[in-house]
Amino acid sequence: MSHMTLSAETGAPLITIERVFAAPPEKVFRLFSEATNVARWWSPFGQCRIDAFDPRVGGSWRIAEVMDEGEIAFFGVFHDLSAPHRIVQTSEFANLPERGHVVLERYEFTPVGTGTRMVLTESFLSVADRDAAIESGMEEGVVQQYRNIDALLAEVTR
Amino acid sequence: MSHMTLSAETGAPLITIERVFAAPPEKVFRLFSEATNVARWWSPFGQCRIDAFDPRVGGSWRIAEVMDEGEIAFFGVFHDLSAPHRIVQTSEFANLPERGHVVLERYEFTPVGTGTRMVLTESFLSVADRDAAIESGMEEGVVQQYRNIDALLAEVTR
Repeated sequence: MSHMTLSAETGAPLITIERVFAAPPEKVFRLFSEATNVARWWSPFGQCRIDAFDPRVGGSWRIAEVMDEGEIAFFGVFHDLSAPHRIVQTSEFANLPERGHVVLERYEFTPVGTGTRMVLTESFLSVADRDAAIESGMEEGVVQQYRNIDALLAEVTR
Repeated sequence: MSHMTLSAETGAPLITIERVFAAPPEKVFRLFSEATNVARWWSPFGQCRIDAFDPRVGGSWRIAEVMDEGEIAFFGVFHDLSAPHRIVQTSEFANLPERGHVVLERYEFTPVGTGTRMVLTESFLSVADRDAAIESGMEEGVVQQYRNIDALLAEVTR
């Protein structure tokens, strides 16, 4: 169930991530849309600090991962929360030297057997922005985040 | 000054629009970021109705164009307002039969002589979404909107 695919077509400023989780969309949606749940899986390499998380249309979010060598943070705005099948939000990496490199993220959750297929589409403002995200080690981060989610779901459903 | 270019590369879900306006960035920025100003140029073919316009990070906006045959509306969320040089926001066409076809829009305003070069980058979640926007007659709409802005700037600076 834990196989993940990350696609990044040459020339198009998109990343698509597909992942299957072993719980129905209602449960997976809550892991992505409730601050207390997000805090349990967001930070694979440090402590998670939720600075803001207001899951409604127009609500803001900001999440930091605090490590010995410093912290990294992302922030954005929710555009759409349609439980249990879709979240659309913006996201920006706060550690970049300049603002404005914003990403549009759409999570789609669909039932597959007793589980959920997540398709995450990330739309960047340029191919350069997309490539910079990939080079920053994004894939390693999300692989670990989704393993954390697997572990949480195993707890919940035990 | 009024030449506009609209670029939409094959295979990449982006639209780039470049336009020069005959006023400095401070003035142009206010035309895009203040509700009373937006209401004066938004609706080329009908009456403009501002349902929401809260120009701060996380603020929502919704603007309708009311015509005899019905109304069309767009709505979104502001992600970044960095006066006078950048606005980043989401936008969604409310008249579509399903939700979730969100667009990320970045306006960049840079001085050029005594005027402003605007570069608008629109990043879609798929090439299909981008092509649908173009086929909806978007270019005709923005050409007229920017002519309205030219007329407003001519008033303001007279």
